Amino acid sequence: MQPSIDTQSLSALFAPKSIAVVGASAEATKIGGRPIDFLKRFGYAGEIIPVNPRSSEVQGLKAYPSLTEIPGGVDLAILSVPASAVVGAVEDAAKKGVKSLVVFSSGFAEVDEAGRAEQDRMTQIARKAGMRILGPNCLGFANVALKANATFSPVIGVGQATPGRVAIVSQSGAFGAYAYSLARGRGLGLSHWIATGNEADVDVADCIGWLAGSDDTDVILAYLEGAKDGRKLMRALEMARAAGKPVIVAKVGRTSLGAAAAASHTSALAGEDAVYDAALRQCGAYRAKTIEEFFDIGLAISSLGLPKSNRIAIVTVSGGVGVLMADDALEAGLDVAETPADAQAKIKELVSFAAPRNPVDTTGQVASDRTLLDKVLNIVLATGRYDMLATFHAAAGLSPEFGMHTAELVGRIRKEHPHLAYACCALFRPEVAKAIEETGCMPFEDPSRMMRTLGALAGVARAMRTKPLPVETPKSAPAPKGVLNEADALRALGAAGVPVVPSAICRSADEAAAAAQKFGFPVVAKIASADILHKSDIGGVKLRLADAAAVRAAFDEVTANAKKAAPQAKVDGVLIAPMISGVVECIVGVQNDPAFGPVVMFGLGGVMVEVLKDVSFRAAPFGRDVALDMIREIKGYKVLEGVRGAPPADLDALADALVAVSRFAAAADDSLETLDINPFVVRPKGQGALALDAVLVGR
Amino acid sequence: MQPSIDTQSLSALFAPKSIAVVGASAEATKIGGRPIDFLKRFGYAGEIIPVNPRSSEVQGLKAYPSLTEIPGGVDLAILSVPASAVVGAVEDAAKKGVKSLVVFSSGFAEVDEAGRAEQDRMTQIARKAGMRILGPNCLGFANVALKANATFSPVIGVGQATPGRVAIVSQSGAFGAYAYSLARGRGLGLSHWIATGNEADVDVADCIGWLAGSDDTDVILAYLEGAKDGRKLMRALEMARAAGKPVIVAKVGRTSLGAAAAASHTSALAGEDAVYDAALRQCGAYRAKTIEEFFDIGLAISSLGLPKSNRIAIVTVSGGVGVLMADDALEAGLDVAETPADAQAKIKELVSFAAPRNPVDTTGQVASDRTLLDKVLNIVLATGRYDMLATFHAAAGLSPEFGMHTAELVGRIRKEHPHLAYACCALFRPEVAKAIEETGCMPFEDPSRMMRTLGALAGVARAMRTKPLPVETPKSAPAPKGVLNEADALRALGAAGVPVVPSAICRSADEAAAAAQKFGFPVVAKIASADILHKSDIGGVKLRLADAAAVRAAFDEVTANAKKAAPQAKVDGVLIAPMISGVVECIVGVQNDPAFGPVVMFGLGGVMVEVLKDVSFRAAPFGRDVALDMIREIKGYKVLEGVRGAPPADLDALADALVAVSRFAAAADDSLETLDINPFVVRPKGQGALALDAVLVGR
Repeated sequence: MQPSIDTQSLSALFAPKSIAVVGASAEATKIGGRPIDFLKRFGYAGEIIPVNPRSSEVQGLKAYPSLTEIPGGVDLAILSVPASAVVGAVEDAAKKGVKSLVVFSSGFAEVDEAGRAEQDRMTQIARKAGMRILGPNCLGFANVALKANATFSPVIGVGQATPGRVAIVSQSGAFGAYAYSLARGRGLGLSHWIATGNEADVDVADCIGWLAGSDDTDVILAYLEGAKDGRKLMRALEMARAAGKPVIVAKVGRTSLGAAAAASHTSALAGEDAVYDAALRQCGAYRAKTIEEFFDIGLAISSLGLPKSNRIAIVTVSGGVGVLMADDALEAGLDVAETPADAQAKIKELVSFAAPRNPVDTTGQVASDRTLLDKVLNIVLATGRYDMLATFHAAAGLSPEFGMHTAELVGRIRKEHPHLAYACCALFRPEVAKAIEETGCMPFEDPSRMMRTLGALAGVARAMRTKPLPVETPKSAPAPKGVLNEADALRALGAAGVPVVPSAICRSADEAAAAAQKFGFPVVAKIASADILHKSDIGGVKLRLADAAAVRAAFDEVTANAKKAAPQAKVDGVLIAPMISGVVECIVGVQNDPAFGPVVMFGLGGVMVEVLKDVSFRAAPFGRDVALDMIREIKGYKVLEGVRGAPPADLDALADALVAVSRFAAAADDSLETLDINPFVVRPKGQGALALDAVLVGR
Repeated sequence: MQPSIDTQSLSALFAPKSIAVVGASAEATKIGGRPIDFLKRFGYAGEIIPVNPRSSEVQGLKAYPSLTEIPGGVDLAILSVPASAVVGAVEDAAKKGVKSLVVFSSGFAEVDEAGRAEQDRMTQIARKAGMRILGPNCLGFANVALKANATFSPVIGVGQATPGRVAIVSQSGAFGAYAYSLARGRGLGLSHWIATGNEADVDVADCIGWLAGSDDTDVILAYLEGAKDGRKLMRALEMARAAGKPVIVAKVGRTSLGAAAAASHTSALAGEDAVYDAALRQCGAYRAKTIEEFFDIGLAISSLGLPKSNRIAIVTVSGGVGVLMADDALEAGLDVAETPADAQAKIKELVSFAAPRNPVDTTGQVASDRTLLDKVLNIVLATGRYDMLATFHAAAGLSPEFGMHTAELVGRIRKEHPHLAYACCALFRPEVAKAIEETGCMPFEDPSRMMRTLGALAGVARAMRTKPLPVETPKSAPAPKGVLNEADALRALGAAGVPVVPSAICRSADEAAAAAQKFGFPVVAKIASADILHKSDIGGVKLRLADAAAVRAAFDEVTANAKKAAPQAKVDGVLIAPMISGVVECIVGVQNDPAFGPVVMFGLGGVMVEVLKDVSFRAAPFGRDVALDMIREIKGYKVLEGVRGAPPADLDALADALVAVSRFAAAADDSLETLDINPFVVRPKGQGALALDAVLVGR
């Protein structure tokens, strides 16, 4: 079943007009008391309805003994009762016609199998009644604008975050709470904060999908430990991209140790990390590697906006730090485009020994002439060449006079160049940093962190500009079961539009010689048997056969070698195929990922794959644009452009072949266990690309 | 001439008992007024002597018209006069017998050739008189303990840094000022702060060498834009390593753009960045890539100390963040060793669904039982398995009760386990962070930054533990001038102890067949001519010659091909050599680096070098330990360990060969322009390694 993202039903959950709290406590610091305290204290405008069988009044509000006895409608019921009482409460909620549930209670799938069964029961009851569930074992959520704090997290009690247009969704409660505090501390304006816990029903993908359609959110920060359904996650990310909303993802479990720990911690099946990486990129999401980066980028998008290009001007008062910033900029994928010659001349007129090329160094002269930096910036920005700007002011932000002068300068630039994504770096006194933040510029204390953030911002902007080619889902075409021999695998691929080398399975030396004659010399001869996997190792392959006599001899030899090495093997004959040369050898594969389904892999053959794991992935199916991205992504890409005088390889043919493989894989879907095309040879530009050998395992 | 590090003469400069200020100003905010103000204000105990021809009193101190008229001795004279007056003042200082100079004045080598000539003049005068010079065009220095603030940097005026045992040396003034402010802001205790400017005499290497022998300094932070003399820098770093003092280096110019900007900014000749990287590593220095890292590590070394090993325990209250920390730890080279089984069982007894393996996740239970974290930490640390500890407390540091409890817990651990390098991460209120700092633990707000810092700390500790084998400088043996042909190059290398393939240059087909017979078949035949560089391209190479007839035919063929392709070439004959097979092809090279002299390069052949630039460098000469480091450092190292069933390569023979090449290069020194051994083949373990071909260019 294609899992759906039903965003409509989530509105009652995340923007409720009435909230009942089952297990309501009179004590504001108890788990069942906190949401009532938060809702009242921060001014939630909807109805707050405590449910408590032993009390008719809770925290000054009228309480009811059970959900069913509440007179009016209930958008959301928070369940804060022991695990054993949850199913009963869910049944009450269903009877009452409650629209959605937040289940704080723990003791379910995160503990043991019995807990998982209980969790499944509650989910079934809710699904039947059309109720959505957030949780169980979750911290809840906060709709910041509505002040709907359906959570027991004590961090909310410390103070509400500033309302804003960034949403945070976290699978982990502890991370969610930490993130909320961090957002509040850094002044990141929030629309929604959601912790999904065990995800019995609503998962991170649902939240992203709902936020994609929500008017109050521009940017989504999502924290993942694993996704049971990667394809649903991809659809949610596509919804966000279509809505023009950047999604920043922190996904833990990058290393094998991390992944092992993640698996022990969550009940989700963590997919291969490189596949996650690729899938996120494929949907235009940005993966942050650290929590700091996660917030820096969120803040940068919401305060600086997305730049039109990655061309950045770097203007500093220190040549050395300018160099450092240029290094960081290049590593972050920014284009430190040279200033035009006339601008360079004008800068040189102002300060004869300035470095005017970009990075622009005004030199220490700024200390004696405080208008100098303004003038240099005017010259640089008047060129119209840049969409991004980074300035470095050393310790100027600390001095009483220079500090506010810097803030004024920043404010003027923001006003005159509103479309510029502008960040600045210096040591600031807090009031100077605050004044700069208010102009819509982002102050940093570390230049490298600033450049990394700007680089990520440009990357996000580029991803948002990228409109992937529409990809139609191919008609289902299951793969044959079991292990296919080379000829059958190539035939199946050929039928699906993947270019394959012509070949013939020959039963005699005469047949082999005739086939070779037809293909043209030289040819190769290989033993054809699904039972023999490593043909070369047993002398089952003969290359560069230049004439009919050599082909006949080879037929006899490989047949004899196979019989000797594997007397039990079922042999179909000897495969004769043209010998292809002058090419780049690649590997193209498909694996069925537990989270993302069929995923296509691409890499160069040999050491690049074996030792460096230099491969790229994309979820199938995809179009030519995505295929070209995955080709360019490998570190060894230059080999395909031609090295040491070799001609450039036929990238078009390679891209077309990857698209065909992706469609083949998507059509086969879960019936295809693995496919390995090795080697897949790419010939010089204009001469095509061919699968020479393949192993296909269906199930 | 071997440039020396004369540390003795630097003591008068950096620990002066009397300071004269030439160009002394009555105004405390003018450049010539600031050092007097700083010296007085912060309580310098030595003599302060203003020099001003137009005033007998400056800022309340008796002033003299010139240096020569001062009655007593002068350890240090600060020159704050126009560039045109500097040489005169240096002459006066020489006459007076002043021991050292700090020259603030700019307008020298940083501006133009005339400036450079003037700078050279002042240096000559000073050298003759035995005076050391810091500058010109420099901010000066501060000896924090002595309160000797021989600087005009306004950042000093804002407030002195805390006295401590970390020294900062910066080539750049702007960076130096920024660094001083940052150190003061972060509470990093400083011994010395030095900005070297144009480095007419005293350079960063001198400062490192002097600090290595200075009693008041434990850690050295050095900022470099380039070093004119890399070998001197290496000697200084070795002095620091021998003294047990870690050196953290920030060297800008990592990318080609950065390096270009660096060159435009300084008058130093920036060496190839990868060579810098290798040379710093070779001397046990740690290269920080960002300013943040530069200070984080400095602070970590001085507050946490150097751990005995990289085994770290990670204890968190959030499983997800634990996973993130484990990922970061592995990437930072830490060993997240599993907790012993009995410790795991004890943790499980406390919290049944905790993750006990490391990262240890106590789960959200800590919120209801605040003694839980203490208990779990006791169990983990009682194992004695760890020398490092990282804890994550989410937002606990923000809450009034939990915050100080966390600080107490941290303090207890520091007290009970003083040898543990311990950092913790949480959102803290400032007073909690301060309390934690005072225990000698390091508080962070970002877990990844914490793990990177701990990883770097472990790396520094390892580098400090490493005692490189003693390396004797080989006797000078200049390389022959010009381009050597293959046979001559191999002969020269063979004489120097590098294993080379045996070969014979043959003048006739008979000679060739006889030589082949002697070596044993198969053999290769190559045209021998220094004029023909790409022999394969013109048909000048024949491989796998299996018998005498084949050798004779090959002799005739390559001779004919060479004559056809390069009729003008001087041909010495045909080289016959055994055909070596079953091997890993490598490249070994030497380049003469402008800063570091002969540098040995190592890499795997083919794509790994051509496309991925997967090579390692070390300055020559070096021992076996360093050779093994450089072999293991390349990304493709696994190829040498044997992939796809290939046997492991003879690493011992490879290492010995690299040592021999390094000694050959060091003996040849500047007479060797380049050496390329390609291929250098490494055979299976126990079977040796051989240079098959080489090009040597002498000068």
